[in-house]
Amino acid sequence: MTVKTLGVIMNGVTGRMGMNQHLIRSIVAIRAQGGVPLPNGDVAIPDPILIGRNENKLRALAEQYDIDRVSTDLGEALENPNDSIYFDATLTNLRAANVKRAIASGKHVYCEKPLAISTDEAMELYRLAQAAGVKHGVVQDKLFLPGIRKLRRLVDSGFFGRILSVRGEFGYWVFEGDWGNQPAQRPSWNYRADDGGGMISDMFAHWRYVLDHTFGDVTAVQCMGATHVHERVDESGRTYKATADDAAYGTFEIRRGEDRIIAQFNSSWAVRVNRDELLELHVDGTHGSAVAGLRGCKIQHRVNTPKAVWNPDIPNPLDFHADWQEVPDNATFDNAFKIQWEKFLSHVAADTPFIHDFHEGAKGVQLSELGMQSWRERRWLDVPTLPRG
Amino acid sequence: MTVKTLGVIMNGVTGRMGMNQHLIRSIVAIRAQGGVPLPNGDVAIPDPILIGRNENKLRALAEQYDIDRVSTDLGEALENPNDSIYFDATLTNLRAANVKRAIASGKHVYCEKPLAISTDEAMELYRLAQAAGVKHGVVQDKLFLPGIRKLRRLVDSGFFGRILSVRGEFGYWVFEGDWGNQPAQRPSWNYRADDGGGMISDMFAHWRYVLDHTFGDVTAVQCMGATHVHERVDESGRTYKATADDAAYGTFEIRRGEDRIIAQFNSSWAVRVNRDELLELHVDGTHGSAVAGLRGCKIQHRVNTPKAVWNPDIPNPLDFHADWQEVPDNATFDNAFKIQWEKFLSHVAADTPFIHDFHEGAKGVQLSELGMQSWRERRWLDVPTLPRG
Amino acid sequence: MTVKTLGVIMNGVTGRMGMNQHLIRSIVAIRAQGGVPLPNGDVAIPDPILIGRNENKLRALAEQYDIDRVSTDLGEALENPNDSIYFDATLTNLRAANVKRAIASGKHVYCEKPLAISTDEAMELYRLAQAAGVKHGVVQDKLFLPGIRKLRRLVDSGFFGRILSVRGEFGYWVFEGDWGNQPAQRPSWNYRADDGGGMISDMFAHWRYVLDHTFGDVTAVQCMGATHVHERVDESGRTYKATADDAAYGTFEIRRGEDRIIAQFNSSWAVRVNRDELLELHVDGTHGSAVAGLRGCKIQHRVNTPKAVWNPDIPNPLDFHADWQEVPDNATFDNAFKIQWEKFLSHVAADTPFIHDFHEGAKGVQLSELGMQSWRERRWLDVPTLPRG
Amino acid sequence: MTVKTLGVIMNGVTGRMGMNQHLIRSIVAIRAQGGVPLPNGDVAIPDPILIGRNENKLRALAEQYDIDRVSTDLGEALENPNDSIYFDATLTNLRAANVKRAIASGKHVYCEKPLAISTDEAMELYRLAQAAGVKHGVVQDKLFLPGIRKLRRLVDSGFFGRILSVRGEFGYWVFEGDWGNQPAQRPSWNYRADDGGGMISDMFAHWRYVLDHTFGDVTAVQCMGATHVHERVDESGRTYKATADDAAYGTFEIRRGEDRIIAQFNSSWAVRVNRDELLELHVDGTHGSAVAGLRGCKIQHRVNTPKAVWNPDIPNPLDFHADWQEVPDNATFDNAFKIQWEKFLSHVAADTPFIHDFHEGAKGVQLSELGMQSWRERRWLDVPTLPRG
Repeated sequence: MTVKTLGVIMNGVTGRMGMNQHLIRSIVAIRAQGGVPLPNGDVAIPDPILIGRNENKLRALAEQYDIDRVSTDLGEALENPNDSIYFDATLTNLRAANVKRAIASGKHVYCEKPLAISTDEAMELYRLAQAAGVKHGVVQDKLFLPGIRKLRRLVDSGFFGRILSVRGEFGYWVFEGDWGNQPAQRPSWNYRADDGGGMISDMFAHWRYVLDHTFGDVTAVQCMGATHVHERVDESGRTYKATADDAAYGTFEIRRGEDRIIAQFNSSWAVRVNRDELLELHVDGTHGSAVAGLRGCKIQHRVNTPKAVWNPDIPNPLDFHADWQEVPDNATFDNAFKIQWEKFLSHVAADTPFIHDFHEGAKGVQLSELGMQSWRERRWLDVPTLPRG
Repeated sequence: MTVKTLGVIMNGVTGRMGMNQHLIRSIVAIRAQGGVPLPNGDVAIPDPILIGRNENKLRALAEQYDIDRVSTDLGEALENPNDSIYFDATLTNLRAANVKRAIASGKHVYCEKPLAISTDEAMELYRLAQAAGVKHGVVQDKLFLPGIRKLRRLVDSGFFGRILSVRGEFGYWVFEGDWGNQPAQRPSWNYRADDGGGMISDMFAHWRYVLDHTFGDVTAVQCMGATHVHERVDESGRTYKATADDAAYGTFEIRRGEDRIIAQFNSSWAVRVNRDELLELHVDGTHGSAVAGLRGCKIQHRVNTPKAVWNPDIPNPLDFHADWQEVPDNATFDNAFKIQWEKFLSHVAADTPFIHDFHEGAKGVQLSELGMQSWRERRWLDVPTLPRG
Repeated sequence: MTVKTLGVIMNGVTGRMGMNQHLIRSIVAIRAQGGVPLPNGDVAIPDPILIGRNENKLRALAEQYDIDRVSTDLGEALENPNDSIYFDATLTNLRAANVKRAIASGKHVYCEKPLAISTDEAMELYRLAQAAGVKHGVVQDKLFLPGIRKLRRLVDSGFFGRILSVRGEFGYWVFEGDWGNQPAQRPSWNYRADDGGGMISDMFAHWRYVLDHTFGDVTAVQCMGATHVHERVDESGRTYKATADDAAYGTFEIRRGEDRIIAQFNSSWAVRVNRDELLELHVDGTHGSAVAGLRGCKIQHRVNTPKAVWNPDIPNPLDFHADWQEVPDNATFDNAFKIQWEKFLSHVAADTPFIHDFHEGAKGVQLSELGMQSWRERRWLDVPTLPRG
Repeated sequence: MTVKTLGVIMNGVTGRMGMNQHLIRSIVAIRAQGGVPLPNGDVAIPDPILIGRNENKLRALAEQYDIDRVSTDLGEALENPNDSIYFDATLTNLRAANVKRAIASGKHVYCEKPLAISTDEAMELYRLAQAAGVKHGVVQDKLFLPGIRKLRRLVDSGFFGRILSVRGEFGYWVFEGDWGNQPAQRPSWNYRADDGGGMISDMFAHWRYVLDHTFGDVTAVQCMGATHVHERVDESGRTYKATADDAAYGTFEIRRGEDRIIAQFNSSWAVRVNRDELLELHVDGTHGSAVAGLRGCKIQHRVNTPKAVWNPDIPNPLDFHADWQEVPDNATFDNAFKIQWEKFLSHVAADTPFIHDFHEGAKGVQLSELGMQSWRERRWLDVPTLPRG
């Protein structure tokens, strides 16, 4: 057994997501478990160098997690030939420039989503990476959530018969911050358009790959956004005007072979949750239905379907919730980010397949962009196929 | 105390809805309770004559419910000056002609919905009735469902603060009829476009008055229809092609004073129910939220709102269902159709106010019509104000 | 980042409250967490010296909690210029003299309640501290209980509409000590008037700040005390005559803007608990009600209010408990004493605001004093405003 | 066995209480069961004549309950020597005049409470009845509620040891009538001072006999009233100003042999119920405690008393509700009003003892009167003993 060390330049891991999901629960956890096993029996171990602006913060983080290398100089880091991978979790509007430098330095590149601020920019990164012959990937964590994996299990098994429709509900109440000593539980930039905030740009990139990889290609989109809460209080206690959309009411058309599926989604940070989980996908098919969440997934086969009759003169005699049955785990579900990191490290080290590439990243950006355009133009828009190459 | 007898010509009460809701649970029940009390202390009692094509059916029905008069000749019935009210629950495409004859005979007219097959036709009936000086009304039963009345109670009490959005879910699985010895629980004409079937034409008329009278005027609509189940088996066991839309995915804009509310609705006869009731309206406001069904209505005030945090690495620690509290009845809720009948009878006998007139009926037809057009043209459509007069 | 060390002279921390709440759960815990963060990014760390009469006890305590300094000589300790804060948790009748010495030595002073044995004495301490320019504070721990903080959240959010009334219930059965091998769970001095015991002098100081800071100024008081249990057994097994009031039945008037709130409280150590918690405040307002305890807080909005009807002929058909809904934590609630210590240390180190000063302490003493007077004179007494200065 | 027929002139039984409790559930029920058994084996059967202003109403009522006699002329009725009992459930301000006429006609008199509008007037009726040698009684229904009878059972058994204190809570939310289509569940006159409304005048008469006959003589009273809800909507939909007290916060001193008991009561029609029943009396004694409602009564003996310790740092580890144990019925409890009617009829027919006489009625009026005075004068008032004679 050979141990291959993969140097990974990690940029932007002092932020919440970068630190928790990518550094601690992925890279540090992979090192703790002794690396990623490769098909030939070898093992790949990531050796990170943390890049950021605040050296004290970087050093404190590195020390806590037993990491040797930190730097505030990305350019210098990119010159080290032992570091073959560049990872980017910086702010969206800085990403394209960083990624281009990394590609120019011959690094394989892995990124947080959204890949870029426009479809054109994302496609440019895709073409540059392809031309440079480096490997490239973008985070699509929700595909690896236990609930979504169980849903995929149902689709693959033919459980649904012909799939008819998907209802998606996402969101919860993000506190305004101005009462009851309850600060907002998400960063304030998410609610300011100028800072890149907004539900559509954040979540439509997710819905694209979840739908594409679970049901079929998204071929058309209609979207109405809203800024429900007009004023919020930020991290320092200052009131600010919320300018980004905090809710999106969308409909998608999906092509699955000869069939067309309709998916209606609402996504909101101004909704009080009346569901089992923060995200739920309700799927109906001719032979059965399912409701998948982050972790759970329950089904109702058509032979379990109650014969409901409309009669408001009496209290509803049926307990509709009792007709659903939980799908068992039958597996241990690891952290979603870590699973994808393992796939990417194996892809780099042993050339195993990896479908979550920059072309996929561009498709996510595209759906956000078309969602915004649909809102402005108040009409359905077709989703053009992005060229491979 | 004077007892006023109101002769009512009831046309089309051998059908399911007409018989159960209008004849038995409304007119017969009103007679059994001794009539409708009027503001001046008098009482109005309806004296029905049943009109239909099948005299045997009519006679059997009349005998069972202690009704003296039946006829197969509408023209003759309309000539009786003692019968001042004409009620129509015939097929939609027959309604306009019947109603015009009744108006021409000077009858007050009360109808099932939809009032007509097009907005133009509905508006023509409205203008004719106005010109003739007769009273007119259309069924808007869902306004009188216990759950919707409680929801209205919440709106009136200011519970919601500023209302942000409404999520509507309606429907259940209507069996295909071709397996498991489980015939469809709704008449087959509902699934044939040529017979006037279809979700949009059936339910958008309801959503119009529910939204208008609970939240504010519907000002724009977007809709995507679908025929999810392609083939069904009818009452006589014959397979037929389903040509009407059996599901509708709509979005509505509502104007409430200065505020705009977004309402996203899905309505489907091809959905397996994952809710408490067959119809649910989830309303979010700045100060609280509610989920109203046919009979129940539960609320969550903002002080009860849990601080949800996205963390798919652990099972959801919050039981979101536990944060909702049922709104008590605090009243006895009578049959929805009967309540509206009592209002119409009192309107005729004592000129008490009645807001559910033909103009309202035309607005219902209008929303269905615009919903179909939006589907064809794949875009949002404004809802023009229909003229009063 | 600078670390500021604040020397704290802690007098009277060998007693139960002083040791558990002030030393262990506050000062020791603050040291363990690395101090109190200040607004400018610095950190303040308390460095205690323990003062008492019994050097052995002091040394044992210091060793257990890793504290370097103890002394039996308060005068010497007050001469150390590095110790800028004096804390007093000695017996009430010793407090004023200690505090005066500390003020004369230029120390900032923080005290347990009651601040003094009379309003005059408390006001004298207030004026001395102001004149000396030292900072001063008095414990008002119940304001920081989770249940009371949630209640304040409700008040701030406008949940109640106009607040009408408060019902307060406090207490539990303090065992007499003379049967069942069940010694009393509170020190015997609490039940002897000469030793400063008594419900009114103990708890009215608490009710004052809880009411003042949650609802509005207490403007009048009526009180009836009682000594329900006449004889008790002390720590050494000796029977003694209980001379202090062990229960108080009071009513308070509160001014909240233009509105008047009535608060009726019973406080008793001779009551068997029929509540969720040892302290409960039931608040009724036009739009909603709440019942707050030490940790929990449940609400009933007016839209959830059942329509109760008096009918003793049948068992009560309503489950009144089911109409209440728990307010979620939505925050981590630290120890109440520690929170206030952090505020006082930050007040000393960085001049951040601190509202719990000696003037507040005097107001607490005042309400106890007026409560006793009202009992003697069997009449309502107005609560005069104490001068600021 | 002889059957004695007792003619009863019933005045004011078209009102809610008079009709339901006195006519239907008492007199009609006693007739249906074949009368009241007397000590000597005879039976007394009441033969009512209904007196009122609206003859139609009286006739309808009489017919429905199989009663032969009605009249609109009280004077004529009083002349009939066969009717030996006069019962009065008219408005309070009409009662004294009616009762005087009845006494002058030599009738035994039984009355609803309050007996009169002032203590002087009530005492005058008492002296007149005594002088005339007629029997007299006043309704004290709450003594016959199952819960209060069980409480009395506990007192008589010595369960409590020495009784220390009573906490009384009465009331519920009476809807304002102006929102949510929820009319008030009590008549509007109760909230207008000029019409004799008010909590103190209504309920203190009840508290007097409940306390007197369960614990001991009420010797002093302190009371603060309030009109919490300022505006209400009456039976005809008109908004009116609420001028009567809708809540009373009182304290009573009770003498029980050598012991003094303190009773603190709140009574409110503006409270949301957080109890098991609409009325609850919590009694603490040295040996045990009880909580009695309208029907239930639960106890906690001192050997079941948990040792509560104040520790807000952890969730309360005790379930205080679990330490209470329900007192079994061990009897069938008949309607409270009917029981008292049976006692009065037996008192008239067979001279059995009857303690609920006009002197008792005067004591009830007295406590209401002193409660109002205490509120005005903001002080405790002694309750003078009313002379017997």
